[in-house]
Amino acid sequence: MPGYTISKGDYLKRLRRVEGQVRGLQRLIEDDTYCIDVLTQISSVTKALQAVGLGLLDEHIRHCVRDAAQSSARDGDEKVAEAVAAVERLLRS
Amino acid sequence: MPGYTISKGDYLKRLRRVEGQVRGLQRLIEDDTYCIDVLTQISSVTKALQAVGLGLLDEHIRHCVRDAAQSSARDGDEKVAEAVAAVERLLRS
Amino acid sequence: MPGYTISKGDYLKRLRRVEGQVRGLQRLIEDDTYCIDVLTQISSVTKALQAVGLGLLDEHIRHCVRDAAQSSARDGDEKVAEAVAAVERLLRS
Amino acid sequence: MPGYTISKGDYLKRLRRVEGQVRGLQRLIEDDTYCIDVLTQISSVTKALQAVGLGLLDEHIRHCVRDAAQSSARDGDEKVAEAVAAVERLLRS
Repeated sequence: MPGYTISKGDYLKRLRRVEGQVRGLQRLIEDDTYCIDVLTQISSVTKALQAVGLGLLDEHIRHCVRDAAQSSARDGDEKVAEAVAAVERLLRS
Repeated sequence: MPGYTISKGDYLKRLRRVEGQVRGLQRLIEDDTYCIDVLTQISSVTKALQAVGLGLLDEHIRHCVRDAAQSSARDGDEKVAEAVAAVERLLRS
Repeated sequence: MPGYTISKGDYLKRLRRVEGQVRGLQRLIEDDTYCIDVLTQISSVTKALQAVGLGLLDEHIRHCVRDAAQSSARDGDEKVAEAVAAVERLLRS
Repeated sequence: MPGYTISKGDYLKRLRRVEGQVRGLQRLIEDDTYCIDVLTQISSVTKALQAVGLGLLDEHIRHCVRDAAQSSARDGDEKVAEAVAAVERLLRS
């Protein structure tokens, strides 16, 4: 089971809200909304998505990385490297 | 008319794809996908959203900022400041 | 002359401050400062650097892009594409 | 001792290189280098700084978070929350 299992419902709710925000962006474009206002809304959606990512990262380190470290130092090290690579992808996106 | 008017259909198509990606994220969570794989997918969706933002910014500078600059130096300056503030919000998100 | 000519002294002052902050980071490492406190300081330095970048971008659009647009539509278009590519590099860094 | 103790020399070397890059930025400004080329260099310096941050984060999770988790679940949880808050600050900078 992934680290986010107990808060699965919460993540689904947040992602459905992000989906609604992306549909909202489409309406803004359809309604010829001023470019800068669309950009502001894109920043909001990005922030909401990144917040979901940070939540998953938190639970991943809290559960998966810790469990791996308890199983063996080597498993723990691999999980840490993998988590930091994921943070790097978030930073670069 | 906003700067993106002629490519409105293209932006709508890209945002519908982003909407599909966000629904894909929900399926990943429902299927208990490994945290790191969900995070990788979140980076992809963020990148797609930012690409839409960069496209809008391009057209905004190309059309709105240029038109404002032609109307008056002061209008041009205001539009530039507004566009750079939008870039700052993208950077901080 | 680049767009930032009139505020050159200001940019130099801000970059000397950033240089001092980077030397401060070295002292934190030498003094075995707690990792999280070093990370917080890295975020500050990054923000200061990005602020210099946003200032340069502002002046670039305000002067260079505008001048190019007045010379010809094609020159203007090239400058806009170049500026947006620079924003994309800032976003990805 | 912080998590980066064994690679302290390496971090100092990388930060001295970043310091040199920031001095390089000052020379670019002094020499009236084209704005976009300065921006490209700012992206490079930011990337180098973030790479130092990611290295510190890796060692922090590998050592400090793991040690805290072994001492008590509560200490481990606090360290995870603190590390994720640091990632959030990196993302927002």
